[in-house]
Amino acid sequence: MKPKSLFRELARIVGKEGVLWRPEDLMLYEYDALSSRRQPQAVAFPCTTEHVVQIVRLAARLALPVVARGAGTGLSGGSVATEGGILLGFSRMKQILEIDLENQRARVQPGVVNLDLSLAVADGGYYYAPDPSSQKACTIGGNVAENSGGPHTLAYGVTTNHVLGLVVVLPDGQVIHTGARHWDSPGYDLTGVFVGSEGTLGIVTEVIVRLCRKPEAVKTLLAIYDQVADATRTVAAITARGITPAALEMMDGFTLRAVEEATHAGYPMDCAAVLLIEMEGLSEAVEEHAEEAEAVCRENRAREVRRAKSSEERDLLWKGRKNAFGALGRISPSYYVQDGVIPRTRLPEMLEFIGGIEKKYGLHIGNIFHAGDGNLHPLILYDARDAEQSARVLQAAKEIIGRCVEMGGSITGEHGVGFEKTDLMPLIFSDDDLDLMRRIKSLFNPQGRFNPGKLLPTGKMCGELRVERAAGGVV
Amino acid sequence: MKPKSLFRELARIVGKEGVLWRPEDLMLYEYDALSSRRQPQAVAFPCTTEHVVQIVRLAARLALPVVARGAGTGLSGGSVATEGGILLGFSRMKQILEIDLENQRARVQPGVVNLDLSLAVADGGYYYAPDPSSQKACTIGGNVAENSGGPHTLAYGVTTNHVLGLVVVLPDGQVIHTGARHWDSPGYDLTGVFVGSEGTLGIVTEVIVRLCRKPEAVKTLLAIYDQVADATRTVAAITARGITPAALEMMDGFTLRAVEEATHAGYPMDCAAVLLIEMEGLSEAVEEHAEEAEAVCRENRAREVRRAKSSEERDLLWKGRKNAFGALGRISPSYYVQDGVIPRTRLPEMLEFIGGIEKKYGLHIGNIFHAGDGNLHPLILYDARDAEQSARVLQAAKEIIGRCVEMGGSITGEHGVGFEKTDLMPLIFSDDDLDLMRRIKSLFNPQGRFNPGKLLPTGKMCGELRVERAAGGVV
Repeated sequence: MKPKSLFRELARIVGKEGVLWRPEDLMLYEYDALSSRRQPQAVAFPCTTEHVVQIVRLAARLALPVVARGAGTGLSGGSVATEGGILLGFSRMKQILEIDLENQRARVQPGVVNLDLSLAVADGGYYYAPDPSSQKACTIGGNVAENSGGPHTLAYGVTTNHVLGLVVVLPDGQVIHTGARHWDSPGYDLTGVFVGSEGTLGIVTEVIVRLCRKPEAVKTLLAIYDQVADATRTVAAITARGITPAALEMMDGFTLRAVEEATHAGYPMDCAAVLLIEMEGLSEAVEEHAEEAEAVCRENRAREVRRAKSSEERDLLWKGRKNAFGALGRISPSYYVQDGVIPRTRLPEMLEFIGGIEKKYGLHIGNIFHAGDGNLHPLILYDARDAEQSARVLQAAKEIIGRCVEMGGSITGEHGVGFEKTDLMPLIFSDDDLDLMRRIKSLFNPQGRFNPGKLLPTGKMCGELRVERAAGGVV
Repeated sequence: MKPKSLFRELARIVGKEGVLWRPEDLMLYEYDALSSRRQPQAVAFPCTTEHVVQIVRLAARLALPVVARGAGTGLSGGSVATEGGILLGFSRMKQILEIDLENQRARVQPGVVNLDLSLAVADGGYYYAPDPSSQKACTIGGNVAENSGGPHTLAYGVTTNHVLGLVVVLPDGQVIHTGARHWDSPGYDLTGVFVGSEGTLGIVTEVIVRLCRKPEAVKTLLAIYDQVADATRTVAAITARGITPAALEMMDGFTLRAVEEATHAGYPMDCAAVLLIEMEGLSEAVEEHAEEAEAVCRENRAREVRRAKSSEERDLLWKGRKNAFGALGRISPSYYVQDGVIPRTRLPEMLEFIGGIEKKYGLHIGNIFHAGDGNLHPLILYDARDAEQSARVLQAAKEIIGRCVEMGGSITGEHGVGFEKTDLMPLIFSDDDLDLMRRIKSLFNPQGRFNPGKLLPTGKMCGELRVERAAGGVV
C-alpha cells in the first residue's frame, strides 16, 4: 500500500492530526539509542483502546507489522520498526484514569510519563516505585513492555512487582483484561507474561499499578574511594549487614570526571570510584542505617563519606548519576552501553575483568552500576565511523556479557533483549526453553506481526552481536 | 490397567517403597478439606526430577491423569485426583539444595515444608516471607501451585513475589528452567505463569526463592472491640496513616470464643471483634508505629489494646489465629470456608452484609479475615448430613462471593480455584479472557492430563457451587 493510502486509512481511525507518514517525520522513529535504520511506513497516535483495536485490525488486513513505542528511551532497539509497518505512538494516551490512594492503586493509560505518575500522587504521600534513569521521559507502557528497573529496584523490585492488571489488545483485535487490583488473581497470571514481553504478545492500553507510600525520611551518602576494589567490596559488605539501601549505585572515576564536567554536581575529580547510597524509611531507622553504612564504607577504606545535607544537595547527587550516560556522550562520538547482571558478591572480580578487557582491546570503558542489584552498565566509548574500532567494541561487549553468564548472571539486567540481544538468548536458555517461548509467542501472536524480530532468536544468526549505530550518534 | 500392574510399572521407577496403590492407603488422598470422593489409581513418591519425568511419560503412555500434591492443605480441592490417575506425592523431595545468604536466595525441592525453609536460614538472620496459616505442614511446591498468601502478605506479597525461578516437567516429559536468580529475567516470564497455575500446566520439581532479612524487632498488638464496625473501620484508618503493619488480622467475637476455648490464648470471651496487629522493622520504627497504631485503635473505640510483652506471648496470640479453623471445627460437625477478597476500605459494609446473610439463611458464620488485604474467610458452620442445610450453606456462600465481586473484589483471595470455584470464574473473567486461559492451558497441557477439572470452567456447569463434604468431616 502506498504511504498516502495508508495515511488515509489511519486518519479515518485517529484523525489526520494523529498520523505521521512523511519520511522526514518518520526519521525520528528509526532509533531508540540502537538505530535500526529502518522506518515504519506510518506512525499512528491512538487516543483510546478502540483506536488501537481498529489500527490492529487494519494492520491485520494489510498484513503489516505493528510496533508499540513509548518514549523510545529503551536501549536495546525494542521500540523500532525494524521490519517496517505501523508504529503506535502513545503520546495522546497519557491520562491517569483513576487514583485510589486508600487502596494504593492507580489506573493509567500507557503514555503516562513515569515521573508524572509519581508527581500526581505526591501530595497524598505516595509514589510509583520503579524509577528508570529516564523517568522524566519514559512511559508506564514502555516500562511494562521492558519490565523496567532503576536505581531503587534493589529495595522495591522491578515493574512486574508493581503492576496488578492490564488491558491488552491482541493481534486479532481482541481486548483482554488481565489481573486485578489484588495481590493474587485467580487463573493464569497473564499479567506477568505481558510484562517484559517487549511488545511481542499484545499492545497494552491500560495499566493498574500499585502505589507506594513515600518514606518519611531519606538520607543520601556519597562514599569516595581511591581503589575501585574497595568500593565493590563495600557493596557486598553493606547488604551482608542486613541493610538494604533504597539505592546503591556505583560510578568509576573515569565516568565521574565526565559527569562532573557536565553537571557540576560537586563530585571529586581525582578518585577511583564512588558509591551513591540512599536510605529510606522512618527517621530513626534511616539515621541508624546511614551511620552503619558509613562505618562499613570507612572499614572498606573510603577516603571520605559525604552526606547530602538538604534535598537540593540530594537532587544534585542524583542529577549526576541520572545524567551520566549523557555526560559520557559529551566526550566520545559514540558509545555502546552494555547491560548485564551478576550476583553482587562477584562485583570486585567483574570490575577487574572489565579492566582487563579495556587493556586487551585498547578501549575506554566507563562503569556505571546499579551495584546493589549486581546490574552492570559498562559504557564502551568509540567512534562509530571507524569500522575496525566498532568491531572491537562488539567483541569486547560480547566478552563482558559472556563473563556475566559464566558468573551465574544474565544477558540483560533491565534494558531488555530488543533486537540487540536476541542471539544471546541461547547463552541462558536451552533449546527447549526457547522453543516453549516461541510457542507462547505463537499462541498470542501467531502471524508474528506484533514487533517482529525482537526478543527471540530467529535461528538465522550465528551468535554474533548484531548492533548498528548511527554514525556519530549518542543517546 | 489393573492396580497391581500400575504399581509394578511405578515401582520400577521409584522403588516399591515409593508407591501406594491399596484402596485403604489411597483413601488418605481423596480430599484436601474439599472431598472429591475420588481416589487416584496410585500415589507415587518421586525422589528426583528424572523420576517425575519417567512417571509423566508412563502416564502419557497409559493416558492417565497426573495430579501433583504437596501437603494436601489446600482448601479448594486443587490437589485431589478428581478424575483418577497418578497422584504425585513430594514427601521424598524435601531437600534444601542450596542456600546463598549473601545473595538472599535458596534453591529447594518442592516437598520442603514452608516453615522448615525459614528455620533452616533463621540462624543467618533470614526467613521465607509467605506464611500460610498451614505453614507447619504445607510445602513450597504446593505454595507455588496455589500462589499462596498468608497473614504477612500485606507487607511482603504472595508467593509469586518471592519465587525467582523454577524447574518444571511438562506433560510430554520435557524439562524446562524458568526465571533466574535475578529480579528481571529476559524473555517471557514463564515463572509467573506457573506460579498459581494449580498444577494444570506443569509439575514443579525445583524452586529458587528469595529470602528476606529477619526484622530487628517485632511488636504484636491485640485490639479488643465491643462493636465489629469499630474494628473494621480501624483497618482502613491504620493504612490511611501510611502504616503498613506486617500483619493485620481480624476475628469476630463468635470465632474468638471458640478459639479461646480450644487454645487458652487469653482472648477476651465477651467482645465483638479483635484485631491482631503486627509491626516489624528496626526497633525505633516499630515502637513508633506500634504507638501510632494503638492510638488509631483507641480513636476507633477499641476498649482495650494489649501488647505481647515477650515472644511467648506473641506466639500465643498467633497460635490462636493460626488454629482458628480447627477451633471452629470443635463446635460444628462441618464448616464451609469461603475465601473472597474486597478492597479493604469496604470491610465495614461487607461485615454488615455477612451479618444479614446469617439472619437470612439462619446460619452461624465465623469471620476470620486477613483484614489488611481485604481477604475474607467467613466460616459457615453446618451439618453436612443435613441436605437441606447444606444447600442453604452453598447458597449463602454464593451470595457472599457474589457481593465480593460486586464490591470490586474477587472470587478467591488465596485458596485458589481448585475444583470448587471453576464455575465462578465467569464472574470475574470474560469469555475472551477465559478462552485465552484455555489456549494457554492447551499449549502446555494439550491433552489436559495434568490436574484435569481444575482452575478453568468446563462449560458444562450451571454456575452452581459444586461442593461436597465428607459427612461430619472437617479439615
